[in-house]
Amino acid sequence: MSCCHLDSPAAAGDTAFTVDASRITFGRGCIAELGPRARGHGLSRVALFGDPTVAGLPIFAAARASLRAAGLDVVEYTDVRVEPTDASFADAVAFATAARPDGYVSVGGGSVIDTAKAANLYASHPADLLAYVNAPVGEGRAVPGPLAPHIACPTTSGTGSEVTGIAVFDLLSMAAKTGIANPALRPTEALIDPDATDTLPSTVVACSGLDVLSHALESYTARPYTRRPVTGPPERRPASQGANPWSDFGAREALRLLGRYLQRAVADGSDRRAREQTMWAATLAGIAFGNAGVHVPHAMAYAVAGLVRDFHPADYPGSAPMVPHGMAVIVNAPAVFRALADTDPARHLAAAGLLAGRGDPDAGAEDAGEVLAAELVRIIRALELPNGLTGLGYRETDCAALVDGSWPQQRLLQNAPRDIDRDDLAGFFGAALRYW
Amino acid sequence: MSCCHLDSPAAAGDTAFTVDASRITFGRGCIAELGPRARGHGLSRVALFGDPTVAGLPIFAAARASLRAAGLDVVEYTDVRVEPTDASFADAVAFATAARPDGYVSVGGGSVIDTAKAANLYASHPADLLAYVNAPVGEGRAVPGPLAPHIACPTTSGTGSEVTGIAVFDLLSMAAKTGIANPALRPTEALIDPDATDTLPSTVVACSGLDVLSHALESYTARPYTRRPVTGPPERRPASQGANPWSDFGAREALRLLGRYLQRAVADGSDRRAREQTMWAATLAGIAFGNAGVHVPHAMAYAVAGLVRDFHPADYPGSAPMVPHGMAVIVNAPAVFRALADTDPARHLAAAGLLAGRGDPDAGAEDAGEVLAAELVRIIRALELPNGLTGLGYRETDCAALVDGSWPQQRLLQNAPRDIDRDDLAGFFGAALRYW
Repeated sequence: MSCCHLDSPAAAGDTAFTVDASRITFGRGCIAELGPRARGHGLSRVALFGDPTVAGLPIFAAARASLRAAGLDVVEYTDVRVEPTDASFADAVAFATAARPDGYVSVGGGSVIDTAKAANLYASHPADLLAYVNAPVGEGRAVPGPLAPHIACPTTSGTGSEVTGIAVFDLLSMAAKTGIANPALRPTEALIDPDATDTLPSTVVACSGLDVLSHALESYTARPYTRRPVTGPPERRPASQGANPWSDFGAREALRLLGRYLQRAVADGSDRRAREQTMWAATLAGIAFGNAGVHVPHAMAYAVAGLVRDFHPADYPGSAPMVPHGMAVIVNAPAVFRALADTDPARHLAAAGLLAGRGDPDAGAEDAGEVLAAELVRIIRALELPNGLTGLGYRETDCAALVDGSWPQQRLLQNAPRDIDRDDLAGFFGAALRYW
Repeated sequence: MSCCHLDSPAAAGDTAFTVDASRITFGRGCIAELGPRARGHGLSRVALFGDPTVAGLPIFAAARASLRAAGLDVVEYTDVRVEPTDASFADAVAFATAARPDGYVSVGGGSVIDTAKAANLYASHPADLLAYVNAPVGEGRAVPGPLAPHIACPTTSGTGSEVTGIAVFDLLSMAAKTGIANPALRPTEALIDPDATDTLPSTVVACSGLDVLSHALESYTARPYTRRPVTGPPERRPASQGANPWSDFGAREALRLLGRYLQRAVADGSDRRAREQTMWAATLAGIAFGNAGVHVPHAMAYAVAGLVRDFHPADYPGSAPMVPHGMAVIVNAPAVFRALADTDPARHLAAAGLLAGRGDPDAGAEDAGEVLAAELVRIIRALELPNGLTGLGYRETDCAALVDGSWPQQRLLQNAPRDIDRDDLAGFFGAALRYW
């Protein structure tokens, strides 16, 4: 099994990898450590970020109480938009600029944590919104200095945003998701309290869990770091540096845990162990993809979410058309992995075995794509998610627009295990229309 | 297998764990990134630490060249003592206090990295040497503020010091090793370049590799974090918080890699893959024990090294009596794990299986201690290390003094999976006198 690239750097590839990690505290009740930890960073006036739903939950009240008990001045911003946009980021930046906090606390899912990252970035180093956004959509400008401390407290077992330097948003003028990827954005520390997940609806646990699953799978199958062309100074290697021994072992453990616990966590909110383990898997997968990068399923997801016509999932607030991020990702995964498994069959078979809890002794290299795709479809069906893109309201005639919407995600596409062109994307979208 | 403690906190134990990690770059040739990385921390005048041997090696010249090429002013301290003492720490502190660098670079084994940590600490926050030393030997005083940036570049696949907040030394007046354990001491980043290990003598690779092996094994079998009595504010939980899911998975991967590669790395210095993988295992084990803590074998090692009479190992410089740290640790391990395996037989059997590359299908819970001890003895013999304490020149009549020398290591002893008293220690030393 080609599970380690330490000794075979390609001629033009990198010869080292860099691991960045933040401080993490994990465990039930640890939200109570928030105030003293904020004090420990020397903070006195904290901006507490949430969305309208989270702001009404016990975890948000516990965060506020802990900060106040530690003697901190708390200013609250609870208008975070779920699936944020450039406009919603700008609103949060305006708040932070006016409020002048000396630190940030985010309590919520990826939307809340990402919005706090953006507010911290643009309030600390003012610029046009597109200045720090990834090229070619934005300028990809370097962040000129440190940001204020940011303590991220996730309330879903999903994004891993609490341990990455990535903030994602919809650029309304292009009807597509894009993002800011910069190590400076990584929160200073994360407080991960599984109590927050006890009340999550099943659909939310399923969608966020499948996002996690794809983080792990894409990190594990990304182009190895030894094949990433070195285009700049080695000490500035990007977070999306490709699969490496560090991301590999986080990804493998996340896949193993999800294979064992995700269905239990979705089926029964009172299964505390399953919800805890799923949240821990989300953190491990976040560390993995934050140090390796994701690839094609995530690149495609940006278009799948951006071009939605009338789909709205159960258990999500409001009624506006939207595809939850995890759903927009996983719908592409079987088609992509079926097609790319031949780049490293052993690795794709190993991933399927970790998800299934056991390897398939009869599977050969030529079966890897089919074995992994079948395992993914099995999980998608078990969690009662839509049947491919048609289940989200897309038709075969939409594929060209979906390709157009995905093609700008070159940062992700170039992290795939082989070169991907527009025809490849068209083939993947076509194969993702319907799975059963 | 009781491999996860997430869901069963003991009534009086902790309910969360905290993971701290520094930035790590790993790969051949990455020492060339040193200068730009030092610049990235805003440094202009760097103290470059080494020992007399390391100072003559190509890796040290490469470090110096990279710093100078980046325009940094470099002041060198190459008098680090291998197995440092309070006196040698004081000498390094005097150097740093006079030289007034704004950052530190250490190139060497654990002795060099630990000495740079101490120099940085006492030059930044002057105090009596015992002020920050662990209680009860020292005062265990809190570090009053941040230290200067420190980039650690290990040249052995051993201590893991590059990723921990621990500095160990011999307190001459007590003839015992002790240390400073404080998160503030953890280097800002680590550059881990396996090129440095190509020229290491076999005995050094064996001793440092067995230290790593015991780091992983002790972290994996330490008292679970859920059974650590919480005696202070939760946000100040110590680095030696006990086994937790994070340390577990680093420890398991280190054991697996060492089982597969350590003997190859010792036998053949030109086996580049084996030396790389052994160095990577050292880093993973360092992260594990830096977030869990070690226990009895390390506590005993302090006395074994401190009370040495006339033993001097091959391949080590000089002729003064000394026991290399890894040798002083591993000599205790079979006796300790044979006796403690009944605290969690499944975990001890799993560790033996990872080292051996396969589990023993016939082994039951009651065999766990014997299976793991036998596997450790097999490795010790294969690496041609001394046969127990008698192989280091100790006699049965020395056991009482060895117990006296270990007993002050309460920080480590309390991290054992059950309570340890002086009679236990006497039994362990007695059983460690001779293994075959």
